[in-house]
Amino acid sequence: MNRKIDVTELALRDAHQSLMATRMAIEDMVPACEDIDTAGYWSVECWGGATFDSCIRYLNEDPWERLRTFRRLMPNSRLQMLLRGQNLLGYRHYEDEVVDRFVAKAAENGMDVFRVFDALNDVRNVKQAIAAVKRAGKHAQGTICYTVSPLHTVEGYVKMAKDLMALGCDSLCLKDMAALLKPQPAYDIVKAIKKELGQDTRVHLHCHATTGVTLVSLMKAIEAGADAVDTAISSLSLGPGHNPTESLVEMLEGTAYHTELDYDRLLKIRDHFAGVRPRYAEFLSGITGVETEIFKSQIPGGMISNMESQLKQQGAGDKLKEVLEEVPRVRAVAGYPPLVTPSSQIVGTQAVFNVLMGRYKVLTAEFADLMLGYYGETIGERDPEVIEIAERQTKKPPITCRPADLLTPEWEQLRTETLGLEGNDGTDEDVLTRAMFPQVAPTFFREREDGPKNVGRDPEEAAAAGSSANPVRTPIKYRVTVNGTSHSVAVAPA
Amino acid sequence: MNRKIDVTELALRDAHQSLMATRMAIEDMVPACEDIDTAGYWSVECWGGATFDSCIRYLNEDPWERLRTFRRLMPNSRLQMLLRGQNLLGYRHYEDEVVDRFVAKAAENGMDVFRVFDALNDVRNVKQAIAAVKRAGKHAQGTICYTVSPLHTVEGYVKMAKDLMALGCDSLCLKDMAALLKPQPAYDIVKAIKKELGQDTRVHLHCHATTGVTLVSLMKAIEAGADAVDTAISSLSLGPGHNPTESLVEMLEGTAYHTELDYDRLLKIRDHFAGVRPRYAEFLSGITGVETEIFKSQIPGGMISNMESQLKQQGAGDKLKEVLEEVPRVRAVAGYPPLVTPSSQIVGTQAVFNVLMGRYKVLTAEFADLMLGYYGETIGERDPEVIEIAERQTKKPPITCRPADLLTPEWEQLRTETLGLEGNDGTDEDVLTRAMFPQVAPTFFREREDGPKNVGRDPEEAAAAGSSANPVRTPIKYRVTVNGTSHSVAVAPA
Repeated sequence: MNRKIDVTELALRDAHQSLMATRMAIEDMVPACEDIDTAGYWSVECWGGATFDSCIRYLNEDPWERLRTFRRLMPNSRLQMLLRGQNLLGYRHYEDEVVDRFVAKAAENGMDVFRVFDALNDVRNVKQAIAAVKRAGKHAQGTICYTVSPLHTVEGYVKMAKDLMALGCDSLCLKDMAALLKPQPAYDIVKAIKKELGQDTRVHLHCHATTGVTLVSLMKAIEAGADAVDTAISSLSLGPGHNPTESLVEMLEGTAYHTELDYDRLLKIRDHFAGVRPRYAEFLSGITGVETEIFKSQIPGGMISNMESQLKQQGAGDKLKEVLEEVPRVRAVAGYPPLVTPSSQIVGTQAVFNVLMGRYKVLTAEFADLMLGYYGETIGERDPEVIEIAERQTKKPPITCRPADLLTPEWEQLRTETLGLEGNDGTDEDVLTRAMFPQVAPTFFREREDGPKNVGRDPEEAAAAGSSANPVRTPIKYRVTVNGTSHSVAVAPA
Repeated sequence: MNRKIDVTELALRDAHQSLMATRMAIEDMVPACEDIDTAGYWSVECWGGATFDSCIRYLNEDPWERLRTFRRLMPNSRLQMLLRGQNLLGYRHYEDEVVDRFVAKAAENGMDVFRVFDALNDVRNVKQAIAAVKRAGKHAQGTICYTVSPLHTVEGYVKMAKDLMALGCDSLCLKDMAALLKPQPAYDIVKAIKKELGQDTRVHLHCHATTGVTLVSLMKAIEAGADAVDTAISSLSLGPGHNPTESLVEMLEGTAYHTELDYDRLLKIRDHFAGVRPRYAEFLSGITGVETEIFKSQIPGGMISNMESQLKQQGAGDKLKEVLEEVPRVRAVAGYPPLVTPSSQIVGTQAVFNVLMGRYKVLTAEFADLMLGYYGETIGERDPEVIEIAERQTKKPPITCRPADLLTPEWEQLRTETLGLEGNDGTDEDVLTRAMFPQVAPTFFREREDGPKNVGRDPEEAAAAGSSANPVRTPIKYRVTVNGTSHSVAVAPA
């Protein structure tokens, strides 16, 4: 009668992505792998999202080699990745063959569970990837991005769940990337999905912790029948990250649910990352408490800091409040997309443009594409007047088809181009790396043989380096005696 | 049908006591009082606990004047305090007349709700205080300290609830000072109390946040019928503190429960304390994440750091693990007291003695008293062999009566002694201050007229002061001008 709740550990992917700008080096993960592998997790999220980008951009680390390392060190675990549907891990839509090849290669290198989402919740954008996962014989998890708007309803989410299951998904994920999912809707959505699609439909829940309420949401989702939840080991948890794994285990004690996690292993994993975390202090999110204002503004914290720096660059730092008020209006004009990569950046930047230059006087290229349908369908109608502006500005027509249907085969060209790059190793993996990150990959290929970089630093070293930048912060007077002669010396910051 | 949940705001007492060593000055609270007064809280906890001690020991602030200030600035609020039963706010048992007079004076100066607890859950130790509150026409809240042991059961807590209500309490508080209360026991205990004592019996829940699970416990307690919960505004929440007020409000949205708090006021309160908090950086608890190990060790975080420093003073810093293992054994020998001030210190120090000098070779005076019954009754039988050692060591007999029954009238003597102190103002309030803090009060009386001290510091000043201790950590070059001649000077640590 006591139901087992499966757990996905996020330490190796979303936890450090959310808390320390995805900077953790493989070297700092390896020592924890044996404990993670044997702690009893349902899966280990360890790849995809921003980790691929970060590997080649900051860590001089081959992401494919990272995946193979995880496969070797965690032979008993389901390895899990986050895949941005037709975008793969990049920032544009790829032609279907590229999607197929990426998924096949990821599977071949060791990936087991593919969590596939689309920023607009347009199921057409995840269809190809999910089919590829099924062909590879792996676990396809269809994802619903949770958001709140006048148009988002429990029924709508259930409809999307049905559409995803119709694609052959093995499970569903309700993904709450901004910590907006409150306990009651968590309960209602999971309950309704289970009711409409059957108790056997596996439902996973992914919540961030930012607003402080989502451990309660996990509890209510479990009461409603959720099969699995995502957590991060406590030393890599909370703030803009996730709920702590140990707290989940303890929360369920005495209830009708339990995890089968090995607590002693959890403590070892915790202790390991407690030692690692301070080494990435310079990348750490400043947020350690809760941010409940997100509920009102609907604007994730990371997006606010982005907009703030955009405004400052334009000498308009005082306009932030106006921009924050503009965001929900831009989102409404765009048909209420969820605010998640890349839609959060697209909507946020347009809000900045509106405030600085007048409303829709200038559209960003990406916002124009969003209005014209080049990212896919939104739940709400997009504002016809702004669509017209987008059409005029870009000379492109609005579309209603699946965006990738407009693409022509590109694999051979991507392959040829990659083979011409210095340092490429001739593999399809390299072609995929370069396809997704055309600006960064060439440098990475050239420098790959230098091996992985660890950008973490010993906290004492970091403190010393930090203070040496400007140890004298206020004017100080000294009496300095040199060779018997006394001098009055004033030292001030230059 | 949607039930209103009452909220007690902790910002002005337990929040800063838990997060910043009770150091917040009245000056930093005053600007928030109007918003707190009108936000719609059921009560405002703002006095008692360690605040009285801190006022006279560190802040040169008259605690009675602080209370009158709150009364003046929050005319619409129930002011609430935490009262340690027969100990009042001090560290020994007081004779009944002193208890009566303290409660009367607190009521006269503006206190409305008295939350009365005893560290051993011995109801005889709260009886006099509760009777005094009732005589003053104020709200008496009987308190159950929550703890976990082989002897603590839901039935036991219900029994204690009945005993407290039989004293005439207006409400009950289930007090979880170490964040040990998991969701299921929270539900079970509240449900059972409501069932046995009637739905009209008001139940309040006080939880700390340390282990990360207790917002879920608040939710389950509310589902079980709890009438009120304690929270702290988000900018003074989490870590060893409490769950954030805003998160509670948001958590309940869409459920069968709601608060009637004014969210705009909450945000103003939040912003105020967000500005105050960094000024107390040097007192801030280092814990910002969760500490789930408390569930295993049963030892609150503050207690561990105490024992650590005791061990280091004895040059036995390497013995901490042994001591941590000894604590549960000492607690069992002592009949499973809750670990809360002062029992946590008494048990912890004896565990240190046992490890350093051999088991029960030397008892601390306080532990001997605990074993002999001078703090009251414990839930479990105390070890007869150790009682015998205590008897031999102290030459005192074990007792079973209410400890305060052994005390003779002391008010007149306390009064006479206080009136002899320089700077006393002749009031009964001063007599009470000095009765509770005989070591600290004389200095306070002498220096009182200097007025309140604010020990908070501007973060930049604090950083500058901190770094001046060793400003040069790595070689630095300066251009230094002396008597009109410019020199290039290199400075490095010696």
